Amino acid sequence: MLKLYRMLPSSSSSSSRNQLLQILSYRKLEVRDFSTSTNNYSAAKGYASDRIFAPYSVYKGKAAFSLSPCLPTFTKLDSGALVVDRRGSIMMSFMPAIGERKYDSDKKQRFALSATEVGSLIAMGPQDSCEFFHDPSMKSSNAGQVRKSLSIKPHSNGYFVSLNVVNTLLNTKDNFSVPVTTAEFAVMKTACSFALPHIMGWDHLTSPTNQQSSGKVSFQPKTNSHILDLEWEK
Amino acid sequence: MLKLYRMLPSSSSSSSRNQLLQILSYRKLEVRDFSTSTNNYSAAKGYASDRIFAPYSVYKGKAAFSLSPCLPTFTKLDSGALVVDRRGSIMMSFMPAIGERKYDSDKKQRFALSATEVGSLIAMGPQDSCEFFHDPSMKSSNAGQVRKSLSIKPHSNGYFVSLNVVNTLLNTKDNFSVPVTTAEFAVMKTACSFALPHIMGWDHLTSPTNQQSSGKVSFQPKTNSHILDLEWEK
Amino acid sequence: MLKLYRMLPSSSSSSSRNQLLQILSYRKLEVRDFSTSTNNYSAAKGYASDRIFAPYSVYKGKAAFSLSPCLPTFTKLDSGALVVDRRGSIMMSFMPAIGERKYDSDKKQRFALSATEVGSLIAMGPQDSCEFFHDPSMKSSNAGQVRKSLSIKPHSNGYFVSLNVVNTLLNTKDNFSVPVTTAEFAVMKTACSFALPHIMGWDHLTSPTNQQSSGKVSFQPKTNSHILDLEWEK
Amino acid sequence: MLKLYRMLPSSSSSSSRNQLLQILSYRKLEVRDFSTSTNNYSAAKGYASDRIFAPYSVYKGKAAFSLSPCLPTFTKLDSGALVVDRRGSIMMSFMPAIGERKYDSDKKQRFALSATEVGSLIAMGPQDSCEFFHDPSMKSSNAGQVRKSLSIKPHSNGYFVSLNVVNTLLNTKDNFSVPVTTAEFAVMKTACSFALPHIMGWDHLTSPTNQQSSGKVSFQPKTNSHILDLEWEK
Repeated sequence: MLKLYRMLPSSSSSSSRNQLLQILSYRKLEVRDFSTSTNNYSAAKGYASDRIFAPYSVYKGKAAFSLSPCLPTFTKLDSGALVVDRRGSIMMSFMPAIGERKYDSDKKQRFALSATEVGSLIAMGPQDSCEFFHDPSMKSSNAGQVRKSLSIKPHSNGYFVSLNVVNTLLNTKDNFSVPVTTAEFAVMKTACSFALPHIMGWDHLTSPTNQQSSGKVSFQPKTNSHILDLEWEK
Repeated sequence: MLKLYRMLPSSSSSSSRNQLLQILSYRKLEVRDFSTSTNNYSAAKGYASDRIFAPYSVYKGKAAFSLSPCLPTFTKLDSGALVVDRRGSIMMSFMPAIGERKYDSDKKQRFALSATEVGSLIAMGPQDSCEFFHDPSMKSSNAGQVRKSLSIKPHSNGYFVSLNVVNTLLNTKDNFSVPVTTAEFAVMKTACSFALPHIMGWDHLTSPTNQQSSGKVSFQPKTNSHILDLEWEK
Repeated sequence: MLKLYRMLPSSSSSSSRNQLLQILSYRKLEVRDFSTSTNNYSAAKGYASDRIFAPYSVYKGKAAFSLSPCLPTFTKLDSGALVVDRRGSIMMSFMPAIGERKYDSDKKQRFALSATEVGSLIAMGPQDSCEFFHDPSMKSSNAGQVRKSLSIKPHSNGYFVSLNVVNTLLNTKDNFSVPVTTAEFAVMKTACSFALPHIMGWDHLTSPTNQQSSGKVSFQPKTNSHILDLEWEK
Repeated sequence: MLKLYRMLPSSSSSSSRNQLLQILSYRKLEVRDFSTSTNNYSAAKGYASDRIFAPYSVYKGKAAFSLSPCLPTFTKLDSGALVVDRRGSIMMSFMPAIGERKYDSDKKQRFALSATEVGSLIAMGPQDSCEFFHDPSMKSSNAGQVRKSLSIKPHSNGYFVSLNVVNTLLNTKDNFSVPVTTAEFAVMKTACSFALPHIMGWDHLTSPTNQQSSGKVSFQPKTNSHILDLEWEK
């Protein structure tokens, strides 16, 4: 079963909704495949209505990729404290082109940028390059079976963003290379800079919306307040 | 009917309200002309009271322009998921001067900067220039009848921001050229950097205010959580 | 009556509260002097409890200044639309030193940076300088009686921030000059960049908290939605 | 009693929760030691459930450190006004390594970066260095007994972040030195830039969530509104 969708020209809004519905239907399939989730807070029932899709996508001749922030999940301890359960990331999803403005979602590959990898991207100057290596099965018995590398390298008018996935189990190699303009990279940098404190969970430490328990009076989490004491009192 | 309004000197707040009321009355006319809107969420009745006007305006000798963010609209699917219906933009509105500090709102022309075009503006160095081309009727039978181009070009102390609109149907040509200082351009860059994640809809992916369904426990949209699994599990 | 307060050393938190209480008592006096305010929304009764004080202050040998954002005020029209009534600013307040770590609040002078002036400050490189001129009575019969100029000029390790106020009516001249380090100027730039969209009122155009009327579905103000149509439809 | 915890490799999420639980348990001990807090708003009872932990940590061979924002606390005056009671900071916590990926939390030392010190960090170019000195007991009879210095110095691919603590009372000297990559430093800069307005308390001056008392109409704190009048009217 081959699933395709057309690239959306930036100025044609007429087909936008249909395309996004199509993307969504794929994702619903993916969700179904992995619905045996752990019982953490993010998977509590009733959240189906909270799915929001707003990826930033770059469609080019041979491949496309999109960026979307994934927030950290928190676990509530018996004490009532919240602690990060799974770290957030910027998820990059790549698809190969299989025709003019057609991309193969069945060959989608993902790469989750950690906070520090996002920092690397944000800090890049016009002549800088970077490369990250992930092994999804690291430290398990399957270590080394799948190796992913993402590279960002400068070219004349922007960067090449490339993902390489080697799966020794399936004996497959996937390679995606997408040229991005300086304008597109500026969007990536600005959006990632915006998202970084959120994928770190720092928005929960600083947001006034978390501070309204005492009416309009701001507060900081009790423990941090004491940490501050520690420097002075120790 | 020729509608005019006076330029507001930056330090005279006395006439500010009147001017803004006048701008608003024009806009209400415009709204009336286009009130046969599609039945999406942004057009649900009852929103008349939510109109907010806070453009950033640059008034110069021959023309003026203003910037205002336009948020994306979302469609709610049967599944409860939200998907971008129309992409957001930074709307630029130009008016020609027709006298000292008088501008002709009947000759207003608009240009909606996409996220990537905003990225281009944000990334501009002091000697950089950029130009964008829009055809409002692209891919329709009217394609090519109206052609718009926006250019930003460096000059001694800032940039020239120019809009060119050629309407072959009405046989009209409009040209607006507004010199902006480096200070004004810094406001444009900072404001556009602030607005960019919002016109992309990323504020909905990261805002704690969207995460309060489970009390004070943060969560990420269920699907994204599974997308994160995908990198590790695939 | 001469009112004084001591400078707070950055690492001594013990006297912080007393100092701030003292500052506040001065400000209440000032408020009383000007309580014949216009009947706009910001002056609606009941807001006394919403006063929040968190200025960024730079205390130096001959003078001190502080920065604090002043939000725009909006007026609600009969149509329900909100329109900016008074533009926001970054208020700078200067006081001369009259002894070691003592400053004279009776000789306080203020200078309200507009959005564009904030842009000028944000855009400054290490060797740049800028100067702004204000006449509080511009366009009135008192024009020219009070002239204020604020300058920011580079020096070896940062900038000199200076305010000059000439009052021909009172025949007084006040001059304040405060050296700021690059670290202090970085705080000023970062804080002003953060505040700029807020003093422009753009936070009201982009904040999800303004978009909750239709449940969790985002929307943009109705009129802006139509403005977006305008580029395509005109 | 020696408490240890293992370093979490960035791509292994399986042990993440356990590690964080362990960190938390240490912190609860610390909180207990200092629970004789002043009766300010941040210590009001009922806040135990609001503890949130999301530090940014850099683990290296000889030591580790983490960053976490500490919000300012406010005091409500009889007039209803809020005034900063204790200034916010970015808390840095260092621990020495005592084996491969093992760190000694009993030898933890803290250093609270003030807003201006954060500005210094944010403003650092690739070749810049900075150093800060704190005396937790400054201006008390114990002045000089504990001296802390934090330095950030450039090296080939990033910076060395070092903390030096000399305690003449206990006759101890602690030294921590952690190399950070440019990517890690970019995360620190971006996260600190995000947090800076919050540790200054400016989010309370600008957040629309503080402005909803009059329905959807924005306002600015009453006093600030009058401060604005002051520039024009004085």
